[in-house]
Amino acid sequence: MKLSDGVEWAIHCTMVLGGIPPDTTLSGKALAEFHGVPESYLLKHLKLMVAKGLLHSVPGPRGGYKLAKPLGDITLLDIVEAIDGEQPAFRCTEIRRRGPCGLNDSAYPRPCGINQAMLRAEKEYRAALARENLKDLTEEFLATADPRFMVLGRKWFDDNARVQKS
Amino acid sequence: MKLSDGVEWAIHCTMVLGGIPPDTTLSGKALAEFHGVPESYLLKHLKLMVAKGLLHSVPGPRGGYKLAKPLGDITLLDIVEAIDGEQPAFRCTEIRRRGPCGLNDSAYPRPCGINQAMLRAEKEYRAALARENLKDLTEEFLATADPRFMVLGRKWFDDNARVQKS
Repeated sequence: MKLSDGVEWAIHCTMVLGGIPPDTTLSGKALAEFHGVPESYLLKHLKLMVAKGLLHSVPGPRGGYKLAKPLGDITLLDIVEAIDGEQPAFRCTEIRRRGPCGLNDSAYPRPCGINQAMLRAEKEYRAALARENLKDLTEEFLATADPRFMVLGRKWFDDNARVQKS
Repeated sequence: MKLSDGVEWAIHCTMVLGGIPPDTTLSGKALAEFHGVPESYLLKHLKLMVAKGLLHSVPGPRGGYKLAKPLGDITLLDIVEAIDGEQPAFRCTEIRRRGPCGLNDSAYPRPCGINQAMLRAEKEYRAALARENLKDLTEEFLATADPRFMVLGRKWFDDNARVQKS
């Protein structure tokens, strides 16, 4: 069981986008460069984040990406679901109905207990992911970041955040 | 994010093996037939279950598989880890160190907060899986199974469980 690499990328991008002024955007190219990841693959993930309503994509030559909602309203679950989808990790294929002792549908009025137990556990996982929001993670990051990063990061933001024309 | 199909198979096989007398085994062929799954692929998963200490593989012409411990001591977490491994679903690739603002190792004395938050959530998932044991699932199954299955299943067990020579 493995989450897509894009989950890590999308969380970092969201935190970075939380650091730019509200009237600015960052291009996909700038976000890829900042994180040292391939732009074309990152753009696919950013598109999924836009589709999920977590980011806005602003068109045009001074366009780019910005948050669609405050960091405090974006959870790790939102991002995991945006990138990796909402399907459960456990996919019951109803093997209980197969083989020499399999019966017709009338024998299975209830969902398989194994499936239910696996989904109960996943529900706990999703609830735990939903308790982690990007505002808290950003505050923790800022409180512990190396001062050298803060200087470099500020300069990079100033150089790369594009002011949108109103 | 998707768990291997083998997880479903291994859980069902474990429950079935919990239903045979302690001095008997079921062959991989019989377990594959009972669940309507390919024998060669199932054998790979049963091998992983043996390696994890959940099943015993008894060699010889009357050999086969049996539980290595009571059903109540086998949890869904044990089986998920046996089949899918113990690596976390979220694999931090330390992208925080890349790009134009990346610094040397001294700037990162702490693990990435994003990684820690993702692993906190996974810990809840694992804890929830560890709370589900195969004895409880089997009792729930037996209490609700169709009576026709109980008759067919009992006959199938009698026909297929191999008594080990002492």
